[in-house]
Amino acid sequence: MKMVISGSKGHHLAYKIAKKLSIDFVPCEVRLFPDGELYIRITRDPYNKSIIYLQSCYGDPSRDILEFIFTVRTLKELDSREVIGIIPYLPYMRQDDRFKNYEVVSAKILFEIIRESGLDMLISIDIHLHRLADLTRIFGFPIVNLTAMEKLALASLEYFDDRDIIVVAPDSEAEQWAKLASSTLNTDYIVLRKVRHGDEEVTVSGELSGIEGKNILIVDDIVSTGSTLVNTLKELRKFNVRKIIAACTHALLVRNAEEKLFNAGLDAIISTNTVLNPYMKVDVADIIAEYLSHHFTKN
Amino acid sequence: MKMVISGSKGHHLAYKIAKKLSIDFVPCEVRLFPDGELYIRITRDPYNKSIIYLQSCYGDPSRDILEFIFTVRTLKELDSREVIGIIPYLPYMRQDDRFKNYEVVSAKILFEIIRESGLDMLISIDIHLHRLADLTRIFGFPIVNLTAMEKLALASLEYFDDRDIIVVAPDSEAEQWAKLASSTLNTDYIVLRKVRHGDEEVTVSGELSGIEGKNILIVDDIVSTGSTLVNTLKELRKFNVRKIIAACTHALLVRNAEEKLFNAGLDAIISTNTVLNPYMKVDVADIIAEYLSHHFTKN
Amino acid sequence: MKMVISGSKGHHLAYKIAKKLSIDFVPCEVRLFPDGELYIRITRDPYNKSIIYLQSCYGDPSRDILEFIFTVRTLKELDSREVIGIIPYLPYMRQDDRFKNYEVVSAKILFEIIRESGLDMLISIDIHLHRLADLTRIFGFPIVNLTAMEKLALASLEYFDDRDIIVVAPDSEAEQWAKLASSTLNTDYIVLRKVRHGDEEVTVSGELSGIEGKNILIVDDIVSTGSTLVNTLKELRKFNVRKIIAACTHALLVRNAEEKLFNAGLDAIISTNTVLNPYMKVDVADIIAEYLSHHFTKN
Amino acid sequence: MKMVISGSKGHHLAYKIAKKLSIDFVPCEVRLFPDGELYIRITRDPYNKSIIYLQSCYGDPSRDILEFIFTVRTLKELDSREVIGIIPYLPYMRQDDRFKNYEVVSAKILFEIIRESGLDMLISIDIHLHRLADLTRIFGFPIVNLTAMEKLALASLEYFDDRDIIVVAPDSEAEQWAKLASSTLNTDYIVLRKVRHGDEEVTVSGELSGIEGKNILIVDDIVSTGSTLVNTLKELRKFNVRKIIAACTHALLVRNAEEKLFNAGLDAIISTNTVLNPYMKVDVADIIAEYLSHHFTKN
Repeated sequence: MKMVISGSKGHHLAYKIAKKLSIDFVPCEVRLFPDGELYIRITRDPYNKSIIYLQSCYGDPSRDILEFIFTVRTLKELDSREVIGIIPYLPYMRQDDRFKNYEVVSAKILFEIIRESGLDMLISIDIHLHRLADLTRIFGFPIVNLTAMEKLALASLEYFDDRDIIVVAPDSEAEQWAKLASSTLNTDYIVLRKVRHGDEEVTVSGELSGIEGKNILIVDDIVSTGSTLVNTLKELRKFNVRKIIAACTHALLVRNAEEKLFNAGLDAIISTNTVLNPYMKVDVADIIAEYLSHHFTKN
Repeated sequence: MKMVISGSKGHHLAYKIAKKLSIDFVPCEVRLFPDGELYIRITRDPYNKSIIYLQSCYGDPSRDILEFIFTVRTLKELDSREVIGIIPYLPYMRQDDRFKNYEVVSAKILFEIIRESGLDMLISIDIHLHRLADLTRIFGFPIVNLTAMEKLALASLEYFDDRDIIVVAPDSEAEQWAKLASSTLNTDYIVLRKVRHGDEEVTVSGELSGIEGKNILIVDDIVSTGSTLVNTLKELRKFNVRKIIAACTHALLVRNAEEKLFNAGLDAIISTNTVLNPYMKVDVADIIAEYLSHHFTKN
Repeated sequence: MKMVISGSKGHHLAYKIAKKLSIDFVPCEVRLFPDGELYIRITRDPYNKSIIYLQSCYGDPSRDILEFIFTVRTLKELDSREVIGIIPYLPYMRQDDRFKNYEVVSAKILFEIIRESGLDMLISIDIHLHRLADLTRIFGFPIVNLTAMEKLALASLEYFDDRDIIVVAPDSEAEQWAKLASSTLNTDYIVLRKVRHGDEEVTVSGELSGIEGKNILIVDDIVSTGSTLVNTLKELRKFNVRKIIAACTHALLVRNAEEKLFNAGLDAIISTNTVLNPYMKVDVADIIAEYLSHHFTKN
Repeated sequence: MKMVISGSKGHHLAYKIAKKLSIDFVPCEVRLFPDGELYIRITRDPYNKSIIYLQSCYGDPSRDILEFIFTVRTLKELDSREVIGIIPYLPYMRQDDRFKNYEVVSAKILFEIIRESGLDMLISIDIHLHRLADLTRIFGFPIVNLTAMEKLALASLEYFDDRDIIVVAPDSEAEQWAKLASSTLNTDYIVLRKVRHGDEEVTVSGELSGIEGKNILIVDDIVSTGSTLVNTLKELRKFNVRKIIAACTHALLVRNAEEKLFNAGLDAIISTNTVLNPYMKVDVADIIAEYLSHHFTKN
């Protein structure tokens, strides 16, 4: 027996996944006490059931992660048969190394406390992680990293007048997504180089011959403050290009990111619904449901 | 070698403790990335040192607790000799049992994730915990529960014109603090009975003969929404009493607690500085430093 | 000369409106100082220009309204020719009367401080206002109330297998929207009666003969805590109905609204993008652009 | 007939002022609706009464100011005889000019919307305002600016071993407070020069001969991110000085101010209780009550 349950922020995705897989949908009861503490209740007995538990962790990542940990541990206490956790946007992945002495490596600790919660498998989308390859081997439990980049590439087509498109990766870390997008669209791609100054400031440079007269699709996993993208736009706008569309999986768009992007000459931004934002064009419920369907058939 | 370090919210207490014990004070660097993620850096090498780490966890208890866990795990990774954690107000203690089916028992899980962080000892003040006695035995690491009630009782004296005081516990759970306060002041105490309706509403009743003409000191560990105290005040104000002062360790005072309390006829409220509030009269740094001084002398 | 400018939360709508009307789009620079104060800068000279200024006011309605007032007053100081303000979801409309003695009638005061800001015209969508009819006459400046209900009704069709639909208004205040939706879909509608208890609790009753075997489209302007809708669902689920879809203009979905709605048997919820939410199916930029186009042609 | 009323954040000050002046204390009922809107109710009829209305505006300055405006307007609607408003820390004073084109001058607009609310007099403490002198004349209603600096200077004495103290103003704007403090303590003072880079970064320089071997009291109106103070500390610590204490009226201490200050060698910080913080040593209720007492005697 299976059950899809959802935390405080994942109802719309969990509901759609449950419908697609014809599994019961059981949203958790989650509220805040007046003093800010979480109250969580699983609303149906998880005993001996296979649980698919989805919780979106953006907006207030620390609280969302604690809710996730509290819920998984309780599902295990109540003797669920297995718990598959889904965090569509996995926060805390940036700090995956000690860049200065004695820093907290939050990415590593997050995986540790997830493993210790007893979770049987973690599913996420386009995890922002560069230095900790082979997560499953390091942390000792299956971590599945799905991608939304093909669907985003396809969704971008409605914004361009024709298929004379070139895909741009703002830095080498985004090359993996540029490859996927350009392969989906059957176009070329180029990779820029990024230099980071502090938390936010970046400069971008690269070989841009051949973009003249083209439509541009910039691809990345996350748009946070928009600094990388703004610098990329400045570089691209030096040339006589046509439309520039940005496609990203996780559109955090913190602070005045949108103002900066539109001022820098972006024509449109599209994203998935891992993070709530005004530019959602791809529903990751489809991607997750498809994976789970294969997974359950296989096992 | 010892070091007192402090998280994002404990600087004033940690600093004073360090001064009293003549130990180096090393505040952590803690800030939020624009997307709400915590950045934490311990600003001096903790290798082979005995660390006293203080973090106040109120206001945003989930984030504050995650900061605590991240920091303790990092101190252990960096091979501190031992880590003594101080959380002056320990949140998440209310949900110490499963009152309805399938609820998350957050108190228990919190102790588990603290133990798994590798913390060597936890110190807190007037922990709000009724059902999990003998914490140290259950969770397998030393948990020290100090009290501020004697100092609060003494601090209340400046509000009364004379020592004709009776101490009131709003419910049986507060009897332990009424005993301490009345013994400190050499007065009598009485215990009321509380009935809780939902998260907040409560009624209070009890044998109140003998309070006529007296000054009243109500004692409790936490004042949150103030509902318990308001009901106590209503009951007490039926009698011809003199001043009513409330003394509590942790003055959370959420929502419109103050408005309700003053409207219900409270003359003054006093508290410690475990939680930032306008009524702080007792500095728990003294209580904690005294304990640590004994502890280090002993060991 | 015209200019579309946008506040901290309206970029996506303002950008689309500007494109549709072929007017320059000029997003404001808005950020918070570390102490929480707003910094606002209009990024191009508004002197002698007709300004269309859009600011979404949800999430933090007090701050969003203050940003609106600060910006409008500055646009007038800088001698804009006229300022047309657009607040897609107008908050603070609930308290439109003094239900208890000495209450603040925030709806009335909000209109007053908007008028005093010098705004020339206010445009909003499906304003939640029952007692202050003829706003323009009372407050002395044009207030335009557009509706999204026809577009929502049409958008609901993709969720139903056939057109055997009946439209339900949860209370008499929603009858205006039920009329619009049923007329758009060429179906019948019924109106339930609501009794409100306190801020949130409501009961619903009504004549429901004739809904057996039907698809149901519930319509309302706002879904906030979801209490009204949950009570409506309970009533409707007593009958043997087919799919139940809720369509609302402003999907605030505060607290655990989604959990309650899905648990009560809602099949889907659809809304506009006046308020960011996972269920946006109607883009109000189209509705606003169409109105403005007529307005500018007329004048 | 007079009445002291308090908004959501001023209860402790208003209560003490009311007691000192023997005036009825009537806290407002203020709460948030689930969607974040303010609900405000004055809990006693203000008709024909002289109202002293105190609201602290820190933490969430936009919401706090809107609450103030809503309440004052309602007091006037309900025919109070006069309304004296007290905002102990007046936010939004930094942006008192247009430093870049088309900026919002929030200080000016704030005074305008306060005047339009019908407020009869505004009282505040150590207003941070440099360019708009003679506020009362410009804005056409009485604005009273009290100071806490003498009391802060006296409170600093318990931190120094002797009276061999020199007062330091971190910049010319703080000279007024250095004068007051040094005159109170009968010591000398010196004034440093500050250069501001962006919102936060500053450098400080000045003639510091003669501070060798001295105790230092740095005075300022506001400590926000602590940048000014940190730069001052760096400069002072180049010399062989004894204790350095900082006294400020409004201790906002945002972000990691405390960590930076203690790391830069500050021995202690003291402040008033206009803004809730761990270092409150001067109660401004005394200062305000004293002023009001004179005011009411005079009139």
